[in-house]
Amino acid sequence: NSQLKIFSLNSNNPLAQEIAQEMGVELGKSSVKHFSDGEIQISIEESIRGCDVFIVQSTSAPVNEHLMELLIMVDAVKRASARTVNVVMPYYGYARQDRKAKAREPITAKLVANLLETAGATRVIVLDLHAPQIQGFFDILIDHLMAVPLLSDYFKSKGIPAEEIVIVSPDHGGVTRARKMAERLKAPIAIIDKRRPKPNVAEVMNIVGNVDGKVAILIDDIIDTAGTITIGADALRAAGAKEVYACCSHPVLSGPAIDRIEKSAIKELVVTNTIQLSDEKKSPKITELSVAKLMADAISRVYENKSVSTLFD
Amino acid sequence: NSQLKIFSLNSNNPLAQEIAQEMGVELGKSSVKHFSDGEIQISIEESIRGCDVFIVQSTSAPVNEHLMELLIMVDAVKRASARTVNVVMPYYGYARQDRKAKAREPITAKLVANLLETAGATRVIVLDLHAPQIQGFFDILIDHLMAVPLLSDYFKSKGIPAEEIVIVSPDHGGVTRARKMAERLKAPIAIIDKRRPKPNVAEVMNIVGNVDGKVAILIDDIIDTAGTITIGADALRAAGAKEVYACCSHPVLSGPAIDRIEKSAIKELVVTNTIQLSDEKKSPKITELSVAKLMADAISRVYENKSVSTLFD
Ligand SMILES: Nc1ncnc2c1ncn2[C@@H]1O[C@H](COP(=O)(O)O)[C@@H](O)[C@H]1O
Ligand SMILES: Nc1ncnc2c1ncn2[C@@H]1O[C@H](COP(=O)(O)O)[C@@H](O)[C@H]1O
Repeated sequence: NSQLKIFSLNSNNPLAQEIAQEMGVELGKSSVKHFSDGEIQISIEESIRGCDVFIVQSTSAPVNEHLMELLIMVDAVKRASARTVNVVMPYYGYARQDRKAKAREPITAKLVANLLETAGATRVIVLDLHAPQIQGFFDILIDHLMAVPLLSDYFKSKGIPAEEIVIVSPDHGGVTRARKMAERLKAPIAIIDKRRPKPNVAEVMNIVGNVDGKVAILIDDIIDTAGTITIGADALRAAGAKEVYACCSHPVLSGPAIDRIEKSAIKELVVTNTIQLSDEKKSPKITELSVAKLMADAISRVYENKSVSTLFD
Repeated sequence: NSQLKIFSLNSNNPLAQEIAQEMGVELGKSSVKHFSDGEIQISIEESIRGCDVFIVQSTSAPVNEHLMELLIMVDAVKRASARTVNVVMPYYGYARQDRKAKAREPITAKLVANLLETAGATRVIVLDLHAPQIQGFFDILIDHLMAVPLLSDYFKSKGIPAEEIVIVSPDHGGVTRARKMAERLKAPIAIIDKRRPKPNVAEVMNIVGNVDGKVAILIDDIIDTAGTITIGADALRAAGAKEVYACCSHPVLSGPAIDRIEKSAIKELVVTNTIQLSDEKKSPKITELSVAKLMADAISRVYENKSVSTLFD
């Protein structure tokens, strides 16, 4: 077998460190700097000839900076004669631009897939794509991990009786995800059904399913400005839920998110570390779970040419 | 013939406006905004079906932001059924990363070429690439314009007697460019020859050619931190030049550039507007010449399927 090397870029160095530690290896030596004019300057500071290289980078904000770092690193790794160039993207930015919602819009999630392949990626490992169809945007192999087991285990460990729990999807698009969590917790599901009775009239929240007297757990893939999730939490409380938790895979938490979460009916928000939280995004309400072991297992299996999907059996 | 449409992105809107004005057309309607998390959101707000579309964007700082804007716009234009997608890049960022100077470095200038093609560009118009070899990085058609005629005409208009002028290349790499300007001004050339006698010993400036009592005009393609050009100007004065002018195609002017220029022996620095100068980069020593007419002519010729190279006869 050829040698394994893991490199970190700048979006989430703590996670990359943790992954390397899980695997009992050191991160590869590389330098990512900027020239005076802001152009990225990358150099790899150890031989990777013939190696299986894994580059850990989330394309979280600043997304364009992090994406270009990644593309340039892939180019450098390819030109340094690596055997395989594996891109580990715990968070895949631009995933919400995955279709033409209106005329004359780009499909940036597909563009990103093409750019990665053009730069020289030979395989991609991602976690909870906004739409699983994005897997089909790639012609190279893609492994799609899920945070639902990790999030479910955390809530299991709280020891809330299963019959008190209801898993809630904040919209119709998230029902499949909510069902996966509900199965693991042996709980029923509910769905928040937003309807706008007439144009320019406020949306009405209708809760499909029974939440009265229950512990409601909202689950989403991305929490960005946190509007949907905090309004949903308030609606659940109004409908009689005795406690409201929320969880997600990717804590984007932009703009008013932290403020909204702190003021909301959400008791605790459980997120993963696919996106590194800056200090101003840390909040006593937010619990971070690490995907390092999950990512490390996936990397090991890809490296040893074993099935990654068995991780979810 | 199909219809011509010119769109501007955010790097250099004044130049795009001027180009459109030269051509007697209005800029196409589009919107380039950012979502709350910093992802770029582009939409084209008029039909471009079957059109020949020209997108004006310099990949100047912030380079990664401007490059991603461009790639996403190219994707949107392609998906909106344009007949051709022509990218007009007055300044091509990352051009200095055009070869592996050391082991395990990327070749980002080639990566950028590949990314543009992958996004869907069908033709590219550039001006004064750092190395003309970058033309060969593209499989699509590329038109390469030159600012030397524009810069030369400006200096001609000053009425300095030809026998007093000497055109100076600040390094060996720029001699071809200096010769082109010298031919137009019917003046001789000189070269600044920097040598490091021993490692860790300061460089020695040696001027090849006669500058004593002359008006020296330094010419370079890019002026970035302005170290080379200002040290060169001081060396020329020390060697007896009575006045020192400098000129370049692309005023990157990062970091200490403005300060160095203002304190240097340079009497006047003549630049073009391929890169938009922010207010803090304006200086009474800097004269800006517009490439709008040159770019407009090139766009017209590409559109009418005429030779662009005849622009330089
Ligand atoms: N970064 C972003 N922030 C907010 N909205 C986005 C972003 N990217 C795409 N969108 C929009 O989100 C919608 C897709 O979300 P969804 O319907 O949940 O799949 C599309 O209408 C996009 O225009
Ligand atoms: N944006 C940049 N700023 C400063 N130097 C750069 C930049 N990009 C590349 N370089 C370096 O400039 C050198 C190429 O310049 P040149 O020898 O003039 O062609 C290479 O050694 C690069 O590492």
